[in-house]
Amino acid sequence: MSAFEDLGEIQPLPIWEGIAARAVVGEEMTMAIVELEPGAVAAEHSHGNEQLGMVLTGRMTFRIGDETREIGPGMTYNIAADVPHTATAGPDGCVVMDIFAPPRHDWDRFQPGEPRAPRWP
Amino acid sequence: MSAFEDLGEIQPLPIWEGIAARAVVGEEMTMAIVELEPGAVAAEHSHGNEQLGMVLTGRMTFRIGDETREIGPGMTYNIAADVPHTATAGPDGCVVMDIFAPPRHDWDRFQPGEPRAPRWP
Repeated sequence: MSAFEDLGEIQPLPIWEGIAARAVVGEEMTMAIVELEPGAVAAEHSHGNEQLGMVLTGRMTFRIGDETREIGPGMTYNIAADVPHTATAGPDGCVVMDIFAPPRHDWDRFQPGEPRAPRWP
Repeated sequence: MSAFEDLGEIQPLPIWEGIAARAVVGEEMTMAIVELEPGAVAAEHSHGNEQLGMVLTGRMTFRIGDETREIGPGMTYNIAADVPHTATAGPDGCVVMDIFAPPRHDWDRFQPGEPRAPRWP
Protein backbone atom coordinates (compact mmCIF):
# COMPACT_ATOMS: atom_id res chain seq x y z
CA MET A 1 0.00 0.00 0.00
CA SER A 2 1.34 3.43 -0.91
CA ALA A 3 2.08 6.09 1.67
CA PHE A 4 0.70 8.62 -0.85
CA GLU A 5 -2.87 9.34 -1.90
CA ASP A 6 -4.05 12.19 -4.10
CA LEU A 7 -6.99 14.20 -2.81
CA GLY A 8 -8.98 13.50 -5.98
CA GLU A 9 -8.69 9.74 -5.37
CA ILE A 10 -10.14 9.92 -1.86
CA GLN A 11 -13.88 9.30 -1.83
CA PRO A 12 -15.94 12.08 -0.24
CA LEU A 13 -17.99 11.20 2.86
CA PRO A 14 -21.33 13.10 3.15
CA ILE A 15 -20.93 14.22 6.76
CA TRP A 16 -23.56 17.00 6.61
CA GLU A 17 -25.88 18.23 3.86
CA GLY A 18 -23.65 20.08 1.39
CA ILE A 19 -20.52 19.15 3.35
CA ALA A 20 -18.19 16.33 2.33
CA ALA A 21 -14.98 15.10 3.95
CA ARG A 22 -12.09 13.34 2.25
CA ALA A 23 -10.33 11.54 5.07
CA VAL A 24 -6.88 10.06 5.59
CA VAL A 25 -7.18 7.86 8.65
CA GLY A 26 -4.15 6.95 10.74
CA GLU A 27 -3.74 5.02 13.96
CA GLU A 28 -3.83 8.12 16.16
CA MET A 29 -5.72 10.72 14.13
CA THR A 30 -7.92 11.54 11.14
CA MET A 31 -6.88 14.22 8.63
CA ALA A 32 -9.90 15.46 6.67
CA ILE A 33 -10.12 17.88 3.78
CA VAL A 34 -13.67 19.15 4.15
CA GLU A 35 -15.57 20.80 1.29
CA LEU A 36 -18.53 23.03 2.16
CA GLU A 37 -20.90 24.14 -0.57
CA PRO A 38 -22.00 27.79 -0.58
CA GLY A 39 -24.10 28.47 2.54
CA ALA A 40 -23.77 24.92 3.87
CA VAL A 41 -24.27 24.59 7.63
CA ALA A 42 -22.70 22.22 10.14
CA ALA A 43 -25.20 22.62 12.97
CA GLU A 44 -23.94 22.92 16.52
CA HIS A 45 -22.23 19.70 17.55
CA SER A 46 -19.42 18.42 19.72
CA HIS A 47 -17.29 15.30 20.02
CA GLY A 48 -14.75 13.78 22.36
CA ASN A 49 -12.10 14.05 19.63
CA GLU A 50 -9.83 17.07 19.85
CA GLN A 51 -10.06 19.09 16.59
CA LEU A 52 -7.55 21.47 15.07
CA GLY A 53 -7.93 22.98 11.61
CA MET A 54 -7.28 25.68 9.04
CA VAL A 55 -9.16 27.29 6.16
CA LEU A 56 -7.64 26.46 2.75
CA THR A 57 -9.92 28.47 0.46
CA GLY A 58 -13.19 30.41 0.69
CA ARG A 59 -14.74 31.76 3.85
CA MET A 60 -16.94 30.56 6.68
CA THR A 61 -18.48 31.83 9.86
CA PHE A 62 -17.29 29.66 12.70
CA ARG A 63 -18.56 29.60 16.26
CA ILE A 64 -16.40 27.77 18.78
CA GLY A 65 -17.76 27.81 22.31
CA ASP A 66 -18.77 31.44 22.86
CA GLU A 67 -16.50 32.90 20.15
CA THR A 68 -17.71 33.65 16.62
CA ARG A 69 -15.40 34.67 13.76
CA GLU A 70 -15.73 35.06 10.00
CA ILE A 71 -12.58 33.41 8.71
CA GLY A 72 -10.67 32.76 5.49
CA PRO A 73 -7.48 31.13 4.17
CA GLY A 74 -4.66 30.76 6.69
CA MET A 75 -6.87 31.11 9.77
CA THR A 76 -6.30 28.25 12.20
CA TYR A 77 -8.54 27.05 15.00
CA ASN A 78 -8.25 24.85 18.04
CA ILE A 79 -11.32 23.08 19.42
CA ALA A 80 -10.81 21.22 22.68
CA ALA A 81 -12.65 17.93 23.19
CA ASP A 82 -16.38 18.33 23.78
CA VAL A 83 -16.53 22.07 22.97
CA PRO A 84 -19.65 22.83 20.86
CA HIS A 85 -19.01 24.41 17.45
CA THR A 86 -21.05 25.53 14.44
CA ALA A 87 -19.91 26.38 10.90
CA THR A 88 -21.65 28.20 8.04
CA ALA A 89 -19.93 28.43 4.66
CA GLY A 90 -19.74 31.75 2.84
CA PRO A 91 -21.38 32.51 -0.53
CA ASP A 92 -18.50 30.91 -2.51
CA GLY A 93 -18.25 27.84 -0.30
CA CYS A 94 -15.21 26.88 1.70
CA VAL A 95 -12.56 24.16 1.95
CA VAL A 96 -10.89 23.47 5.27
CA MET A 97 -8.41 21.00 6.70
CA ASP A 98 -9.82 19.47 9.90
CA ILE A 99 -7.74 17.10 11.99
CA PHE A 100 -8.96 14.96 14.84
CA ALA A 101 -7.40 12.84 17.56
CA PRO A 102 -8.32 10.17 18.28
CA PRO A 103 -9.55 9.20 14.76
CA ARG A 104 -13.19 9.87 13.78
CA HIS A 105 -14.24 6.22 13.74
CA ASP A 106 -17.86 7.41 14.04
CA TRP A 107 -17.49 8.47 10.37
CA ASP A 108 -17.28 4.79 9.39
CA ARG A 109 -21.07 4.89 9.22
CA PHE A 110 -21.06 7.18 6.17
CA GLN A 111 -21.38 5.71 2.70
CA PRO A 112 -18.74 7.35 0.48
CA GLY A 113 -20.12 9.49 -2.35
CA GLU A 114 -19.21 9.16 -6.02
CA PRO A 115 -15.64 10.15 -6.87
CA ARG A 116 -15.47 13.73 -8.10
CA ALA A 117 -12.91 16.46 -8.59
CA PRO A 118 -11.99 18.24 -5.35
CA ARG A 119 -12.98 21.91 -4.87
CA TRP A 120 -9.37 22.59 -3.95
CA PRO A 121 -6.56 22.81 -5.17
CA MET B 1 -7.47 32.82 25.01
CA SER B 2 -8.94 32.73 21.51
CA ALA B 3 -9.67 29.50 19.68
CA PHE B 4 -8.44 31.26 16.51
CA GLU B 5 -4.92 32.17 15.42
CA ASP B 6 -3.90 33.54 12.03
CA LEU B 7 -0.96 31.82 10.35
CA GLY B 8 0.92 35.12 10.08
CA GLU B 9 0.74 35.56 13.87
CA ILE B 10 2.32 32.17 14.61
CA GLN B 11 6.08 32.43 15.07
CA PRO B 12 8.11 30.17 12.75
CA LEU B 13 10.29 27.50 14.37
CA PRO B 14 13.57 26.78 12.51
CA ILE B 15 13.28 22.99 12.43
CA TRP B 16 15.84 22.46 9.62
CA GLU B 17 18.02 24.84 7.63
CA GLY B 18 15.66 26.62 5.21
CA ILE B 19 12.63 24.92 6.78
CA ALA B 20 10.34 26.61 9.29
CA ALA B 21 7.22 25.30 11.03
CA ARG B 22 4.31 27.34 12.36
CA ALA B 23 2.70 25.07 14.92
CA VAL B 24 -0.68 24.88 16.61
CA VAL B 25 -0.23 22.55 19.55
CA GLY B 26 -3.15 20.71 21.08
CA GLU B 27 -3.41 18.15 23.85
CA GLU B 28 -3.31 15.18 21.48
CA MET B 29 -1.56 16.48 18.35
CA THR B 30 0.51 19.17 16.68
CA MET B 31 -0.69 20.82 13.45
CA ALA B 32 2.23 22.45 11.61
CA ILE B 33 2.29 24.58 8.49
CA VAL B 34 5.81 23.96 7.24
CA GLU B 35 7.55 26.32 4.80
CA LEU B 36 10.49 24.94 2.79
CA GLU B 37 12.73 27.32 0.90
CA PRO B 38 13.73 26.36 -2.65
CA GLY B 39 15.92 23.24 -2.53
CA ALA B 40 15.74 22.92 1.26
CA VAL B 41 16.37 19.41 2.59
CA ALA B 42 14.97 17.60 5.61
CA ALA B 43 17.56 14.85 5.91
CA GLU B 44 16.40 11.32 6.64
CA HIS B 45 14.83 11.16 10.06
CA SER B 46 12.12 9.36 11.99
CA HIS B 47 10.10 9.85 15.15
CA GLY B 48 7.69 7.96 17.33
CA ASN B 49 4.93 10.44 16.44
CA GLU B 50 2.58 9.35 13.67
CA GLN B 51 2.64 11.93 10.83
CA LEU B 52 0.01 12.68 8.20
CA GLY B 53 0.24 15.60 5.80
CA MET B 54 -0.58 17.30 2.53
CA VAL B 55 1.16 19.69 0.13
CA LEU B 56 -0.46 23.15 0.04
CA THR B 57 1.67 24.86 -2.61
CA GLY B 58 4.90 24.18 -4.52
CA ARG B 59 6.54 20.82 -5.02
CA MET B 60 8.86 18.50 -3.16
CA THR B 61 10.49 15.12 -3.56
CA PHE B 62 9.46 12.96 -0.65
CA ARG B 63 10.85 9.59 0.33
CA ILE B 64 8.83 7.61 2.86
CA GLY B 65 10.31 4.24 3.74
CA ASP B 66 11.24 2.74 0.37
CA GLU B 67 8.85 4.90 -1.68
CA THR B 68 9.91 8.12 -3.43
CA ARG B 69 7.48 10.54 -5.11
CA GLU B 70 7.66 14.03 -6.53
CA ILE B 71 4.50 15.64 -5.19
CA GLY B 72 2.50 18.86 -5.37
CA PRO B 73 -0.70 20.50 -4.06
CA GLY B 74 -3.41 18.10 -2.91
CA MET B 75 -1.10 15.10 -2.49
CA THR B 76 -1.51 13.54 0.95
CA TYR B 77 0.85 11.23 2.79
CA ASN B 78 0.73 8.90 5.75
CA ILE B 79 3.89 8.14 7.72
CA ALA B 80 3.54 5.49 10.42
CA ALA B 81 5.49 5.96 13.65
CA ASP B 82 9.22 5.38 13.30
CA VAL B 83 9.25 5.15 9.49
CA PRO B 84 12.26 7.06 8.06
CA HIS B 85 11.49 9.88 5.62
CA THR B 86 13.38 12.53 3.66
CA ALA B 87 12.08 15.66 1.91
CA THR B 88 13.69 17.96 -0.66
CA ALA B 89 11.84 21.10 -1.75
CA GLY B 90 11.49 21.93 -5.45
CA PRO B 91 12.98 25.02 -7.14
CA ASP B 92 10.08 27.27 -6.05
CA GLY B 93 10.00 25.97 -2.48
CA CYS B 94 7.05 24.24 -0.91
CA VAL B 95 4.49 24.68 1.85
CA VAL B 96 2.95 21.63 3.49
CA MET B 97 0.60 20.84 6.34
CA ASP B 98 2.15 18.24 8.64
CA ILE B 99 0.22 16.83 11.55
CA PHE B 100 1.59 14.71 14.35
CA ALA B 101 0.19 12.63 17.20
CA PRO B 102 1.22 12.70 19.93
CA PRO B 103 2.34 16.38 19.85
CA ARG B 104 5.93 17.23 18.82
CA HIS B 105 7.06 18.31 22.27
CA ASP B 106 10.66 17.80 21.09
CA TRP B 107 10.12 21.02 19.07
CA ASP B 108 9.97 22.97 22.34
CA ARG B 109 13.76 23.22 22.09
CA PHE B 110 13.58 25.51 19.05
CA GLN B 111 13.82 29.26 19.51
CA PRO B 112 11.05 30.87 17.40
CA GLY B 113 12.28 33.05 14.53
CA GLU B 114 11.27 36.63 13.89
CA PRO B 115 7.63 37.11 12.84
CA ARG B 116 7.32 37.29 9.06
CA ALA B 117 4.68 36.93 6.39
CA PRO B 118 3.81 33.31 5.61
CA ARG B 119 4.73 31.87 2.16
CA TRP B 120 1.12 30.71 1.89
CA PRO B 121 -1.72 31.72 1.42
